[in-house]
Amino acid sequence: MYDIRGLNEECGVFGIWNHPHAATLTYMALHSLQHRGQEGAGIVCSNGESLFGARGMGLLTEAISDAQLESLQGFQNAIGHVRYATTGASEIANVQPFLFKHSKGDLGLAHNGNLTNAVQIRHALESEGSVFQTTSDSEVLAHLLIRGKSPNIKTNQKAALNQVKGAFSCVMLNTNQLAAVRDNNGVRPLMLGEVDGAYCVASETCAFQAIGATYIRDIEPGELITFSGENDIDYDYYSTNINHNMCSMEYVYFARPDSEFHKHSIYNVRKALGKKLASEMGIEADIVIGVPDSSLQAAKGFSEYTGIPNEQGLLKNRYIGRTFITPDQSVREKQVRMKHSPIRDVIEGKRVVVIDDSIVRGTTSKYIVKALKSAGAKEVHMGISSPPLVDPCYYGIDVSTHAELMAAQHTVEEMKEMIGADSLTYLSVEGMHEVFREFDSKGECDACFTGNYPIEIVDHQLPEVKELKRRGV
Amino acid sequence: MYDIRGLNEECGVFGIWNHPHAATLTYMALHSLQHRGQEGAGIVCSNGESLFGARGMGLLTEAISDAQLESLQGFQNAIGHVRYATTGASEIANVQPFLFKHSKGDLGLAHNGNLTNAVQIRHALESEGSVFQTTSDSEVLAHLLIRGKSPNIKTNQKAALNQVKGAFSCVMLNTNQLAAVRDNNGVRPLMLGEVDGAYCVASETCAFQAIGATYIRDIEPGELITFSGENDIDYDYYSTNINHNMCSMEYVYFARPDSEFHKHSIYNVRKALGKKLASEMGIEADIVIGVPDSSLQAAKGFSEYTGIPNEQGLLKNRYIGRTFITPDQSVREKQVRMKHSPIRDVIEGKRVVVIDDSIVRGTTSKYIVKALKSAGAKEVHMGISSPPLVDPCYYGIDVSTHAELMAAQHTVEEMKEMIGADSLTYLSVEGMHEVFREFDSKGECDACFTGNYPIEIVDHQLPEVKELKRRGV
Amino acid sequence: MYDIRGLNEECGVFGIWNHPHAATLTYMALHSLQHRGQEGAGIVCSNGESLFGARGMGLLTEAISDAQLESLQGFQNAIGHVRYATTGASEIANVQPFLFKHSKGDLGLAHNGNLTNAVQIRHALESEGSVFQTTSDSEVLAHLLIRGKSPNIKTNQKAALNQVKGAFSCVMLNTNQLAAVRDNNGVRPLMLGEVDGAYCVASETCAFQAIGATYIRDIEPGELITFSGENDIDYDYYSTNINHNMCSMEYVYFARPDSEFHKHSIYNVRKALGKKLASEMGIEADIVIGVPDSSLQAAKGFSEYTGIPNEQGLLKNRYIGRTFITPDQSVREKQVRMKHSPIRDVIEGKRVVVIDDSIVRGTTSKYIVKALKSAGAKEVHMGISSPPLVDPCYYGIDVSTHAELMAAQHTVEEMKEMIGADSLTYLSVEGMHEVFREFDSKGECDACFTGNYPIEIVDHQLPEVKELKRRGV
Amino acid sequence: MYDIRGLNEECGVFGIWNHPHAATLTYMALHSLQHRGQEGAGIVCSNGESLFGARGMGLLTEAISDAQLESLQGFQNAIGHVRYATTGASEIANVQPFLFKHSKGDLGLAHNGNLTNAVQIRHALESEGSVFQTTSDSEVLAHLLIRGKSPNIKTNQKAALNQVKGAFSCVMLNTNQLAAVRDNNGVRPLMLGEVDGAYCVASETCAFQAIGATYIRDIEPGELITFSGENDIDYDYYSTNINHNMCSMEYVYFARPDSEFHKHSIYNVRKALGKKLASEMGIEADIVIGVPDSSLQAAKGFSEYTGIPNEQGLLKNRYIGRTFITPDQSVREKQVRMKHSPIRDVIEGKRVVVIDDSIVRGTTSKYIVKALKSAGAKEVHMGISSPPLVDPCYYGIDVSTHAELMAAQHTVEEMKEMIGADSLTYLSVEGMHEVFREFDSKGECDACFTGNYPIEIVDHQLPEVKELKRRGV
Repeated sequence: MYDIRGLNEECGVFGIWNHPHAATLTYMALHSLQHRGQEGAGIVCSNGESLFGARGMGLLTEAISDAQLESLQGFQNAIGHVRYATTGASEIANVQPFLFKHSKGDLGLAHNGNLTNAVQIRHALESEGSVFQTTSDSEVLAHLLIRGKSPNIKTNQKAALNQVKGAFSCVMLNTNQLAAVRDNNGVRPLMLGEVDGAYCVASETCAFQAIGATYIRDIEPGELITFSGENDIDYDYYSTNINHNMCSMEYVYFARPDSEFHKHSIYNVRKALGKKLASEMGIEADIVIGVPDSSLQAAKGFSEYTGIPNEQGLLKNRYIGRTFITPDQSVREKQVRMKHSPIRDVIEGKRVVVIDDSIVRGTTSKYIVKALKSAGAKEVHMGISSPPLVDPCYYGIDVSTHAELMAAQHTVEEMKEMIGADSLTYLSVEGMHEVFREFDSKGECDACFTGNYPIEIVDHQLPEVKELKRRGV
Repeated sequence: MYDIRGLNEECGVFGIWNHPHAATLTYMALHSLQHRGQEGAGIVCSNGESLFGARGMGLLTEAISDAQLESLQGFQNAIGHVRYATTGASEIANVQPFLFKHSKGDLGLAHNGNLTNAVQIRHALESEGSVFQTTSDSEVLAHLLIRGKSPNIKTNQKAALNQVKGAFSCVMLNTNQLAAVRDNNGVRPLMLGEVDGAYCVASETCAFQAIGATYIRDIEPGELITFSGENDIDYDYYSTNINHNMCSMEYVYFARPDSEFHKHSIYNVRKALGKKLASEMGIEADIVIGVPDSSLQAAKGFSEYTGIPNEQGLLKNRYIGRTFITPDQSVREKQVRMKHSPIRDVIEGKRVVVIDDSIVRGTTSKYIVKALKSAGAKEVHMGISSPPLVDPCYYGIDVSTHAELMAAQHTVEEMKEMIGADSLTYLSVEGMHEVFREFDSKGECDACFTGNYPIEIVDHQLPEVKELKRRGV
Repeated sequence: MYDIRGLNEECGVFGIWNHPHAATLTYMALHSLQHRGQEGAGIVCSNGESLFGARGMGLLTEAISDAQLESLQGFQNAIGHVRYATTGASEIANVQPFLFKHSKGDLGLAHNGNLTNAVQIRHALESEGSVFQTTSDSEVLAHLLIRGKSPNIKTNQKAALNQVKGAFSCVMLNTNQLAAVRDNNGVRPLMLGEVDGAYCVASETCAFQAIGATYIRDIEPGELITFSGENDIDYDYYSTNINHNMCSMEYVYFARPDSEFHKHSIYNVRKALGKKLASEMGIEADIVIGVPDSSLQAAKGFSEYTGIPNEQGLLKNRYIGRTFITPDQSVREKQVRMKHSPIRDVIEGKRVVVIDDSIVRGTTSKYIVKALKSAGAKEVHMGISSPPLVDPCYYGIDVSTHAELMAAQHTVEEMKEMIGADSLTYLSVEGMHEVFREFDSKGECDACFTGNYPIEIVDHQLPEVKELKRRGV
Repeated sequence: MYDIRGLNEECGVFGIWNHPHAATLTYMALHSLQHRGQEGAGIVCSNGESLFGARGMGLLTEAISDAQLESLQGFQNAIGHVRYATTGASEIANVQPFLFKHSKGDLGLAHNGNLTNAVQIRHALESEGSVFQTTSDSEVLAHLLIRGKSPNIKTNQKAALNQVKGAFSCVMLNTNQLAAVRDNNGVRPLMLGEVDGAYCVASETCAFQAIGATYIRDIEPGELITFSGENDIDYDYYSTNINHNMCSMEYVYFARPDSEFHKHSIYNVRKALGKKLASEMGIEADIVIGVPDSSLQAAKGFSEYTGIPNEQGLLKNRYIGRTFITPDQSVREKQVRMKHSPIRDVIEGKRVVVIDDSIVRGTTSKYIVKALKSAGAKEVHMGISSPPLVDPCYYGIDVSTHAELMAAQHTVEEMKEMIGADSLTYLSVEGMHEVFREFDSKGECDACFTGNYPIEIVDHQLPEVKELKRRGV
């Protein structure tokens, strides 16, 4: 029996068609998308006849050696992938892009998101003789793509895409075509760009900036864009059943602040979330600080709305690497100090508002309140620039069980006590949506805040998956 | 289009059922089989429910870390594989045992040999929707095994095995069964043993010695033995069409001298090959030396037959590792000296017979004759303890084209000149077979010496494979 | 002839006496001091009888393995060092702490700073028979310490310290004593702390925060503090000739913002530098942004003084690792984009003030102005929160020749043109000193801004050093 | 207090003067000397002005990367060193050649052997102010060399060499001279050669063979040869007090069989040792086998003398690397099988003579007898081709205490019982010397067999060394 670890990943993808430095630009683009995944990275290239790839574990610079990158020079087409560091056993077999060998032509696939009916389809494929080497949902999609019977590759792609449910922003490299597709709910971002006359796609626009590409526009939910020939681009949709369920957490936490959705920078969205939180929170304080790096903008917005001065009262150590293991409890307690440190004479004697983007298990929040108080803060009020995380995500984010979520187990009042803060305020769900709409979003998934899942979670109705969950796997 | 590199591999396999230290014994056994493959190694274990594996590139000690081996403790069943270092690009994806995930149960597969109709079957499977991640023929066999429709696993195994042609000695680990099979021509060896009351199988008996196991007997061509339950063993055949075509080169070169086939040590077989060569060669000389390590026994046999003293006149450097690359020709010429060195005062002034097991490209032979002459040898007569290599092997040995084979391009007389020897004598094909029969062999493949291929090379009739060959790929 | 590369290093030191987790706390402290040096790291421990050490190249987590750290458990006394990544060849032999073996007792030494008469002393020692294994000035100090003839270790320490000139903050571990000393000009910082009843010293107070230690006070210029016995502390001075020449660049750039000098956080000092710059600059603009990370505070101070809104308009990629080398010019030009990226809709259409702490070669400044303009900035005014860097430092900072310094070669007006900014303003030398004095500094070295070197550069008068300089070594 | 671990090392050295590929040839030579040391390796080169080096831990191919070797191209003069893998903690600081920096000129030093008055000299030097970074006796010699006051470098070398006692074969690289010296007792070998018109020296002649050099002659005890200018060679002696105490174990065990001492191959010396043993042993048996690899020649000689057939009845696994650690006793017992394995049908039913070169702790001997008996040997008679090892070596071999030596603790009869052999016979001391003399040796050290130490062990009279020994350090 295979497990369902594939359900909880967050990744970054990139693709480029007909550029003389395809592999190098893909490498640079993946470097800028590294925040979306640090477990592994890979590049698959094509020379129009065959596909070749390199992939490895760890950060991009560890995963792909200079010699490997060198070996991919001279190919005009490429896709790339960075993979999220999920906890537990990680295996090279799971690192993407996947590369499949077929007499009709090779296929490279890089996928961000999560399919919600992968187990169901896999059952069906296995009963027809298919054989799988990983537990990844992406391998299921690849099988569907390759099994297509039509001589027309796009016909096969549409057929395959219409069978899968869930969240997916994918790039698919064939010998004579590159395709980019975003699921018809538009959960994960996917962007279209152009560099030196060649088209490219990326999970975020920061990748365009990294390679000097122009950001053309967001790829729409259900849209299937294919590149072929010298510069031929074909705009199409694989589905007419379009919804707008962009992941709220992409806005709140995942995306890089200099990335843009709908031509608006995430930087400004996060400032606006901070302003909205300020408008709902109504607090008196001396300074407001953000937890670095992801909450600095919300803190700035909070400050602008309230007039409370914004200070950089917490520092993050830039050299966090693997930490050593010590059996001594007194040393372990000191270890948490290695990540964040407060600036005493900014904090001392002040009523502090500290802004964070979310609370998952509450461990960091507890440490931060304690650190601020021991640095002399008179009061510590915590503001969260998103609503309480109460439900798991099945669309590609690694928060999979209620048990892990502090807000799923406790009231906000209880959480405040546990964290040790003088007050704890979350942004409202309505407030959050209002902000997104100001920035031209057409609709967002808020399932992790509300339990309203916009896409059916088919696999979770399967008896064996229920059994796995019952057993706590 | 996939290539056909899979055609030329030599490997070692091991399997053990229901032993408390299954993974550790597999590790030790693979260590003793390391001479059969240095490119990669892996172990797949089972706890009766799921399969888990570890594999890596390089020698066993590099491929599998202590931590990985530790993580495989507590499993009772295991298979392992060492993979041959073929030239050119090698990829982690090709390292075995393969591990396939399936809702009906996982499958681990380790394969030594080469299928001759893998491309044909692959075409058929692809047309039915199968998807492949490597170009390996072993992946084809795995697909056939998993696609079996019968609820009886052995029925499926027999059906799959009857579809493939070629050379294969395989171990297949299912959640509740371990199967060992040898192809019905018996090209590659496979041995049955027992340790601490648990059954085990291995490519060579040296693996049994390494783990303190008893060597029960050789597994027969076409035999399919399955282990299950606590100690249940089931002897069966997947085919009634049995032939005896044991690879001659296993006797001549591949197997370790302390390994036994049909209860006879390879050591004694090789001595007998040397004796037979001596009986055919008829030469006068002062000393006979063997090229270390594989030809020392043949030289000893030669000496015993002729009475010419046997000396260890050539030494092999034990610390050969990766060699550095130098652009300077004069330095490159010196580099070959790093591998073998003659002992001057053993050689000086002597008429020397030097015995080697085979000549592939002739490079080493040339160097050895030159080294012996420069150490003062009066005459150098080269004797080869097997017939001339004139045809490629399609059953698992890495000699794939006529162009690479000196004896396919030149007469023995020409070779003698090129090598610089005073004479060059090969063992006759008949002489070789006679020796094997003395040691209870029931028949051997001699295709690489005669072109008589006992198993049809199906794939080589396929148009695209012909095309690849035409283009010299 | 030895070279003089030792002249240009910046490092971090730590020491702790009589704590059960001495090595582990040293490791954690060095982790927090990693910004002071990334080329190598080491720890030397003592059990009261002998000294043992571990050191390696690279970041702390690479330099010292878990196994090495484990091997240092059980020792009560320790010193540690992180070493700056100077360009060019780096060698393990140069990584500190140095460990010297002597029959009178071992000596461990970790040094931050640079001696200005090391070559002169070395000549004298060599003529008396001393032998050196590195070109490091620190090895010279160690020789002086060990050659002391007095049975009283502090007498020898004082004698040695009085012979050397230059900048040094050192920790010296003997078998029965730990000594911490700061040169009598107080160029490099050195702080005294206490944790769990044990004394410790560190280059910066952020190390105290990392291990939960209390910051007692700054060690004074010329002060020599020794720790021995269980908790014995001895306050002394090795010199009565005290000057106050704290390195201005420690305030401006080197120290971590959460570190404190004279009980004031660098964070607040840098904000004040930004305010002072604003008071001198007098500019109209729409937004002010800081170059991350070191100039964010100055930008904030600038904003507070002028009322111009402060935005985080430039982002820094957190995953900068080694970069690959590409022969293609068009790709190389894209590569600089990988480090910093502007946020378009923050910048677009705005008159931007961008604050940086210093300009060395001008490369980064050029890129930043260009990036801001291409992101739509209407005007870009650059403000530098320190005076122009016109002279090299001989006291431990890696800016060694006039040729490297843009401001030593060009007027501010020329630099403005070269950088492409609409204006370029530096903080005045007087303004800078005023700010430091507000934060209780008693005097600073400003040699790199003025050429007024407070400590004699003895070695630069030596003929062979002049010759080296003439030849451009 | 420093320890005395430096007393027990065995190493290999090489030097070459004025060859365009000095570093590469040194690398190749060290590769052939790898059997003399596997702990670390290094090369120091000179361009006539300065010295540059590269060194590292492990085998040569691990210790020196291709890039490092590349960086040493273009230098004409070089020395190299391989270092023995002593047990326990090993440190990069101890890897040679040592490189010392001095204003009068750099010095590189590579040393094979052991000084017996290093501690005494070190005390004296320390009292004069010298500072040491290792506990190595070689560092002491370097200090003496550098402290020389004469403007004539050879005068200084002679003065230094006359101060040290013990065993040393050294190469010393100065900027304008390479010197090779062998101690006046001639304990360790040192050979003179020539390649492409350039002179070279090496611990063994196998290094000459590896680089295509001609073996000129053995360097004599007390001889000091210096190379300078283009091809100037100066033959001299540093001492007139010459003795001939070549280490017997070099003949018996250390040197490679293809190396030559006094123009005789070690191969033939070892055969003669086997013959002499046979003449003294007088045994009836069916076969004689040697323990691979070092005892194969002695077994061959034994066979020639007695007429008992020589078979290769024991195999050595060529892929021994690091072994894993297992807590399970039953697995540990199996592990010893991984190193040697008997060939059953060679051994079965036979009376076996097994020849080994020496017995240290007896562990291997016990396993071999057991393995041969379990392979069916009727009798196992063990013959040792050297006398019993009863005393430690102070001249460079890693056998340092009586407690480790089985023969120092037990009679031969007791040893026979412990090992499980049917008989155990050692070569006599006289017999051994007779053999060496047949091969033109002028005299040998037999201290480890007789306790007759030809060179005074000065340091062992020092109180602190006695104290260390008393405490069992």
